[in-house]
Amino acid sequence: MQGLAMRKETDVLGEMMLPDEVYYGIQTVRARDNFAVSGRTAVDVPHYLWAVAAIKQAAAKANCKIGALDATVAKAIVQASQEMMDHRFDDQFPIDIFQGGGGTSTNMNANEVIANRANEILTGKKGYDVVHPNTHVNMGQSTNDVIPAAMKMTCRINLHALIAEVAALEVMLEEKTQAFDHVVKLARTCLQDAVPITLGQQFSGYLHQVRRLHQSLKTASEQTLDLPLGATAVGTGLSTHEGYLEQVYIELREISGEQFIAEDNFFDGLQNGDTYLEVAAQLKKLAAFLSKMATDFRLQGSGPRAGFNELFLPAVQPGSSIMPGKINPVMPELINQIAYQVIGNDVTITMAVEGGELDLNVWEPVIIKALFESCNLLTNAIPLFVEKCLKDLLPNEPVCREYAEKSTALATVIATLFGYKVGCRIAAKAFEQNLRVRDVVLDEQLLTPEQADYLLDPMVMTDPKASAAAVTRYQQEIATPQKNLNSEVNTKEPA
Amino acid sequence: MQGLAMRKETDVLGEMMLPDEVYYGIQTVRARDNFAVSGRTAVDVPHYLWAVAAIKQAAAKANCKIGALDATVAKAIVQASQEMMDHRFDDQFPIDIFQGGGGTSTNMNANEVIANRANEILTGKKGYDVVHPNTHVNMGQSTNDVIPAAMKMTCRINLHALIAEVAALEVMLEEKTQAFDHVVKLARTCLQDAVPITLGQQFSGYLHQVRRLHQSLKTASEQTLDLPLGATAVGTGLSTHEGYLEQVYIELREISGEQFIAEDNFFDGLQNGDTYLEVAAQLKKLAAFLSKMATDFRLQGSGPRAGFNELFLPAVQPGSSIMPGKINPVMPELINQIAYQVIGNDVTITMAVEGGELDLNVWEPVIIKALFESCNLLTNAIPLFVEKCLKDLLPNEPVCREYAEKSTALATVIATLFGYKVGCRIAAKAFEQNLRVRDVVLDEQLLTPEQADYLLDPMVMTDPKASAAAVTRYQQEIATPQKNLNSEVNTKEPA
Amino acid sequence: MQGLAMRKETDVLGEMMLPDEVYYGIQTVRARDNFAVSGRTAVDVPHYLWAVAAIKQAAAKANCKIGALDATVAKAIVQASQEMMDHRFDDQFPIDIFQGGGGTSTNMNANEVIANRANEILTGKKGYDVVHPNTHVNMGQSTNDVIPAAMKMTCRINLHALIAEVAALEVMLEEKTQAFDHVVKLARTCLQDAVPITLGQQFSGYLHQVRRLHQSLKTASEQTLDLPLGATAVGTGLSTHEGYLEQVYIELREISGEQFIAEDNFFDGLQNGDTYLEVAAQLKKLAAFLSKMATDFRLQGSGPRAGFNELFLPAVQPGSSIMPGKINPVMPELINQIAYQVIGNDVTITMAVEGGELDLNVWEPVIIKALFESCNLLTNAIPLFVEKCLKDLLPNEPVCREYAEKSTALATVIATLFGYKVGCRIAAKAFEQNLRVRDVVLDEQLLTPEQADYLLDPMVMTDPKASAAAVTRYQQEIATPQKNLNSEVNTKEPA
Amino acid sequence: MQGLAMRKETDVLGEMMLPDEVYYGIQTVRARDNFAVSGRTAVDVPHYLWAVAAIKQAAAKANCKIGALDATVAKAIVQASQEMMDHRFDDQFPIDIFQGGGGTSTNMNANEVIANRANEILTGKKGYDVVHPNTHVNMGQSTNDVIPAAMKMTCRINLHALIAEVAALEVMLEEKTQAFDHVVKLARTCLQDAVPITLGQQFSGYLHQVRRLHQSLKTASEQTLDLPLGATAVGTGLSTHEGYLEQVYIELREISGEQFIAEDNFFDGLQNGDTYLEVAAQLKKLAAFLSKMATDFRLQGSGPRAGFNELFLPAVQPGSSIMPGKINPVMPELINQIAYQVIGNDVTITMAVEGGELDLNVWEPVIIKALFESCNLLTNAIPLFVEKCLKDLLPNEPVCREYAEKSTALATVIATLFGYKVGCRIAAKAFEQNLRVRDVVLDEQLLTPEQADYLLDPMVMTDPKASAAAVTRYQQEIATPQKNLNSEVNTKEPA
Repeated sequence: MQGLAMRKETDVLGEMMLPDEVYYGIQTVRARDNFAVSGRTAVDVPHYLWAVAAIKQAAAKANCKIGALDATVAKAIVQASQEMMDHRFDDQFPIDIFQGGGGTSTNMNANEVIANRANEILTGKKGYDVVHPNTHVNMGQSTNDVIPAAMKMTCRINLHALIAEVAALEVMLEEKTQAFDHVVKLARTCLQDAVPITLGQQFSGYLHQVRRLHQSLKTASEQTLDLPLGATAVGTGLSTHEGYLEQVYIELREISGEQFIAEDNFFDGLQNGDTYLEVAAQLKKLAAFLSKMATDFRLQGSGPRAGFNELFLPAVQPGSSIMPGKINPVMPELINQIAYQVIGNDVTITMAVEGGELDLNVWEPVIIKALFESCNLLTNAIPLFVEKCLKDLLPNEPVCREYAEKSTALATVIATLFGYKVGCRIAAKAFEQNLRVRDVVLDEQLLTPEQADYLLDPMVMTDPKASAAAVTRYQQEIATPQKNLNSEVNTKEPA
Repeated sequence: MQGLAMRKETDVLGEMMLPDEVYYGIQTVRARDNFAVSGRTAVDVPHYLWAVAAIKQAAAKANCKIGALDATVAKAIVQASQEMMDHRFDDQFPIDIFQGGGGTSTNMNANEVIANRANEILTGKKGYDVVHPNTHVNMGQSTNDVIPAAMKMTCRINLHALIAEVAALEVMLEEKTQAFDHVVKLARTCLQDAVPITLGQQFSGYLHQVRRLHQSLKTASEQTLDLPLGATAVGTGLSTHEGYLEQVYIELREISGEQFIAEDNFFDGLQNGDTYLEVAAQLKKLAAFLSKMATDFRLQGSGPRAGFNELFLPAVQPGSSIMPGKINPVMPELINQIAYQVIGNDVTITMAVEGGELDLNVWEPVIIKALFESCNLLTNAIPLFVEKCLKDLLPNEPVCREYAEKSTALATVIATLFGYKVGCRIAAKAFEQNLRVRDVVLDEQLLTPEQADYLLDPMVMTDPKASAAAVTRYQQEIATPQKNLNSEVNTKEPA
Repeated sequence: MQGLAMRKETDVLGEMMLPDEVYYGIQTVRARDNFAVSGRTAVDVPHYLWAVAAIKQAAAKANCKIGALDATVAKAIVQASQEMMDHRFDDQFPIDIFQGGGGTSTNMNANEVIANRANEILTGKKGYDVVHPNTHVNMGQSTNDVIPAAMKMTCRINLHALIAEVAALEVMLEEKTQAFDHVVKLARTCLQDAVPITLGQQFSGYLHQVRRLHQSLKTASEQTLDLPLGATAVGTGLSTHEGYLEQVYIELREISGEQFIAEDNFFDGLQNGDTYLEVAAQLKKLAAFLSKMATDFRLQGSGPRAGFNELFLPAVQPGSSIMPGKINPVMPELINQIAYQVIGNDVTITMAVEGGELDLNVWEPVIIKALFESCNLLTNAIPLFVEKCLKDLLPNEPVCREYAEKSTALATVIATLFGYKVGCRIAAKAFEQNLRVRDVVLDEQLLTPEQADYLLDPMVMTDPKASAAAVTRYQQEIATPQKNLNSEVNTKEPA
Repeated sequence: MQGLAMRKETDVLGEMMLPDEVYYGIQTVRARDNFAVSGRTAVDVPHYLWAVAAIKQAAAKANCKIGALDATVAKAIVQASQEMMDHRFDDQFPIDIFQGGGGTSTNMNANEVIANRANEILTGKKGYDVVHPNTHVNMGQSTNDVIPAAMKMTCRINLHALIAEVAALEVMLEEKTQAFDHVVKLARTCLQDAVPITLGQQFSGYLHQVRRLHQSLKTASEQTLDLPLGATAVGTGLSTHEGYLEQVYIELREISGEQFIAEDNFFDGLQNGDTYLEVAAQLKKLAAFLSKMATDFRLQGSGPRAGFNELFLPAVQPGSSIMPGKINPVMPELINQIAYQVIGNDVTITMAVEGGELDLNVWEPVIIKALFESCNLLTNAIPLFVEKCLKDLLPNEPVCREYAEKSTALATVIATLFGYKVGCRIAAKAFEQNLRVRDVVLDEQLLTPEQADYLLDPMVMTDPKASAAAVTRYQQEIATPQKNLNSEVNTKEPA
């Protein structure tokens, strides 16, 4: 095409003409054509290319300070990498996120973009006349330390975002725990009617779980501060110049504002992907909990007439294209499905870590894809769930109380007082005759109405201190002549 | 903004102003805002929206023919859905691929786009004055039958593409099996030296595996022809008009050119996702095999100097940013990683199918995401692997033969002739003294040089008939007076 | 210890004294000590050792017939292997089911037991004076063909047992489908009230699913008839004698009564584990379905007072140690948990197949463990589930009907007649005022009581023909002067 | 059968005759018959029944001290539970480890055994005349707090055992890291020849990984000290007497010697299984690492003649039934397979945790089965691996050095000195002409022999300080008139 300027680039496999306006180079083109499988690229992983560019910038500064890199060249690399960090080259990373082992292609893509831009800054045109992708941009580095270091940095930044959302979820659950404190309802175990609980107590369970998950995520995030940067190809730091290792971390901390440090042992750092497994495990724990809570809401909100109908979930969209008026629990359903994907991705990441071989785990590309997909699904879904489901969740209080009062499992208190067998008899009679436990107990004269009032009050049963005190009070009351009935029953109990 | 025309849409939750140029409607906007988690939409799933549109068109035609839908309205819907099939509205589907259960949002998005376009065709403006998304576009349908029907249709179309690539892989493996027929090499079991095999035999193993996988994929694809379309909300077909069921399939077959038919039992069709599990299982089998083959190539191509070095993989890009001249097996590595994702996605799909509840499995959105991601990764990766790895793969013949000749496991033949214990002795001596089995055998006068020639020829050992014949020939030869030595050895054998 | 007779055995690593009463030998002892990790042995896998012994017997007969094995030795091996098939040596297989790759240890354990027993038969004492484990018992075989052949045979036999249980489940579901035909209830999608369905229709969904699973299992079972026996070490059949291959299958078919044949391509047979993946996938599909059905029963049986309470599950044991009278759905809960294990095992098997390398997949031991654990959990659990849950399952008919009649989703019929927007208005009013759709419709004079009778009858709605006919009848009725009301409503519809 | 004494037991479902000699009761028999699926029972889980019995004993002591339980009855329960802790009743727990949700059956089995034994102690005969399983043995408890408390206690005890083995592994790796310090070899990335490393450095990577895993396991183990005991049925502590909660933990700590405390929030404790997920995740990390290390050993020990052949793995058993002299890496292979099972079990546990519903996660039985299977596989396998593989592992030093010296990737140093393009040229020439980098460099007069000596010494390259110092020294040397050659080359570099 007339007028379209082209430039030639060369690598060990040969040469290639590239449109002059692109910043990437020959190796990027090869990789783009080799790996076009998913339609997703490094740009789709938030902060990943920022991290790669930050490393390039830190290395250029460090190499310059220790005298290994010419100051003019370094300055151009610093500017070019800054532009990359500022997302000016997001359209210059066309390689699939799936790619050959180790992520060489993404590293070389960055090296080429920065080198071409640096040359442009220095000479007015692209090409590697003054700044070379490998010799200068990649100086003191290898894909094998750059990519895992960038991955851990990306973990760190993405976990910040996720943790902020988890913290917001925690705040919302604190609010709900308090707000639902007075709502007595029936607990269910094995989906069968059990004994009373308050809705606040149910939510306090979520709250404490989220607090623990919050803490676990923070702990996992700490593990992402140790980087293999400086290991170069296999952990020995070969080809780094004297003083580089210390200086590159000083620069990186300044650029990122994060306390990144070198790993204790670089061989470990390159061989093993346990940090990714750890992060994936914490994401999975979070996903599994969110999914469990989502299922609870779907169950409790089931109905409205042929289900539990004890929780009102906010209506956020019509639920059916055919059934008028139907509203579905779409926000919890979104959460369940995200959990399935996060759990599947954990298997993917596990295989990638287990499948490591010898001196470098090269399965980083698929780890990047799966780990950050999981992380970002959660980061994006939690605030939607908080805003569109949790915030305006309301109990159906009359139904909740009704359930609590009519459960035959209230006979648990009778078993506590008169032994398990008497409890069973009362429960069975209540069930068969469709009565409440209170009615049966009064009918059988096991308790006086006053005793039933304080012993079978569902709200009392939700408070361990109150229910134990009620039993004590009862026992004191019957420690008088007229307690015959009960002791009789008690002696009749054994099988 | 002055000049930006807006229109009002209404649903059971209220009303909303929309820019007049968009074809989607109020429910689409709600869903878009509810589910923005992954950045992927229905458009990212090849052929999925085509299938939804094809159903809409088939339903409109059928409803018109049976007299349930006015012909003018039907005609407009047919035109609008055709335009959707022709990808004219790809930018009108902004909802995340993850969404509330059942895929109502995608179905309503299609209903709204088609309704707005149909109104535009008929009246010159959008809005549902004449054609209503639910009443007309969705007539006789429910999300609950439309979406799973569209999913199966999407399976069918995507499997065609995958199967074509598998067929091409098969052809390439046939070629290689023949081409490598004469290359004798050493087989390894437990990564330890075993007995000779030809490279053609190794590849014939791949070939037969691919043939079986090819067949399995075709069988699985047949299962996607049975659709739940006509089931409407829960399988009873409620709200369909008389004659619709038969007619809609006649139309759908004509539109698609595929022999889609109604499932035997719609309740089964809505409750169960075993077809997705079946397709996922076949994708997983394919991925597991490809990954195994890829690992073989990586092992056989390891080196060049500190590895097996028996296979030359085509160089498709430089392998390292730091180590000059290094070339990595990036195409096999791509395959391994895709396999990890496909296997993880199978877990996701399994959870979605296992997690179905009552009358409808509503976890379709995550199934769509995971299943078609897997399918398309494979469809895209196989031709790259064939073209850039398999096609120009070459054996390192001298190395292959050398391995075959020097394996101490050639003593297997000695064990066949003289018993296992003699075989062990020969193998041990060969190993300890760094000799070949042939040398030891001659040294011990177990065989004559002529016998060694035909008994220990690696190529003979790769052919069951030839090796059995060699043993027979040997036994005939020693069935003469001078065979003493061997029979002696034989009687000395027992422990 | 005085009096405890010992014998010496030798292998390439040295010699060992063994108590004379044991039939296993030196390699068994080494393997027992190397792999003591799980406490489970080959004996815990039903029919596995039978299959190994059957192969040994078939090989001895075949080798004898083709003249490679002395008739006396062969006869003793045949007798010894028959005794092994008759479970006389079950206590002679002490090696862990987890073991070194390929299952060499189990094969050698069998070789040693049979050799020692054969020597005992022939000479009165153990030791390998006349019959040697490798030379004679293992003649023409390798672990590499014996173990996968035995695994496929074991699959075949275990699948027979499973398929029989699936067939019985199918019969029970047929019965229930018929028995529950008249029970009208409410379907739920997204756990929200939908439109009516019969309990028989719900069960017909299970029935058709089980029929399909039944067929899939039979198809998978057919794949286990092709054996790699005859491949020996790497697929080339090296060390087999002329005529062995044909003869050993003749013998094996006679011994087993199954139509076992040689695989088309032995290299494929040794390299690839897709058959195990296929069987595992079918087990997983079965497990996922059973788990889904079990969850349905748990949901439908939830309550009795604070849940759905529409299904009575047979009480098979008290449900709580503390809450008197509580009965839990323990049989469905058993099924759910088995499904989780089967799904986990599928991942295990997948990794083992994907992790195959070069000429032999050596991960058979873990495949055996996981695959047959899954298979036998299902085989054992299904009849318990059928007998203790399905057989005496009963609907709570009044509750079922009540749900069906009061769902606001009955407004779907109104939407069919008057358009979606009218349907929405009716549904909303019914919900807000806690009315039935019928009441609202009559109140609004949309239908006459007679029309409501046939249009809103839940049972009619469960039958596509009946409900479509009801709509047609209605449309005919209103095709007369007095239909004004409805057409009016209809024209008011557009947004 | 005449003479076989029987006794009658009763529960809410009816009565049953039991052989008088058994200690378990009617509910145990029902559960045994309901759940016979796997052949594994609670006895197969190390320390699990001990933990249940310890809880029973602690509760009896506590209930006695607070005056809720008669001292005589308490004393008998204490004795009976002690006997259970002493494994006297291991044959009295016949119920399958798979069972109905929540583990009620195992809890009731313990209650029955202890009650029958306590009655026997007090009255000379079994039956519940004086001590009742629910009323007395289970006093203040529910299955819902007893079983998860016992599970966490079991985690704690089993993790102690595992951690001890991990610590021993760590010691062995320390030893090897030192012992292999002087062995220079070639690192491989993407299975392709890379730059030199010492075998000690490779092992230091394992060592640091194990140290981190060790720490993670200890951290996870700390999480198992918080128990839900005292929560009773749903977290409210209903039916516990005043003072019980504090006292039962005092007793439990004394009995166990572990610092068990009550969870902050019992609702959380019953709803969520994140602790099991956490433990499972740490087991999986350990398994994934062990498997990776095992694969390394298998690769490095591949051969002996057609593989890497750089590591000698101890021979622990003959490797083949057909190939004489073959030795397989069976101990690493054992580890790989255990990892596959541990990873599959993690999926199982994840599904069980994700599948929790409402107020109690009832999927504990399958969690117990899968979690402790994984834990014990690792606990048993690690010492076998240490003893039979790691301890006597030896490098093939001449081969290691040879690989290190002949790698073309030594050109990395040339690239560091002269730029990447010169490095590429040297590497390519070395590869094509089958030369060493040193030879090419000398031939091209890029370096003097003295410079090559210190710059291309593989051992120097393994030490970042030494290699950087070598570069510095070289740069100082050429900072003199005669350095022309190199600077020239450097200026020729750009593309």
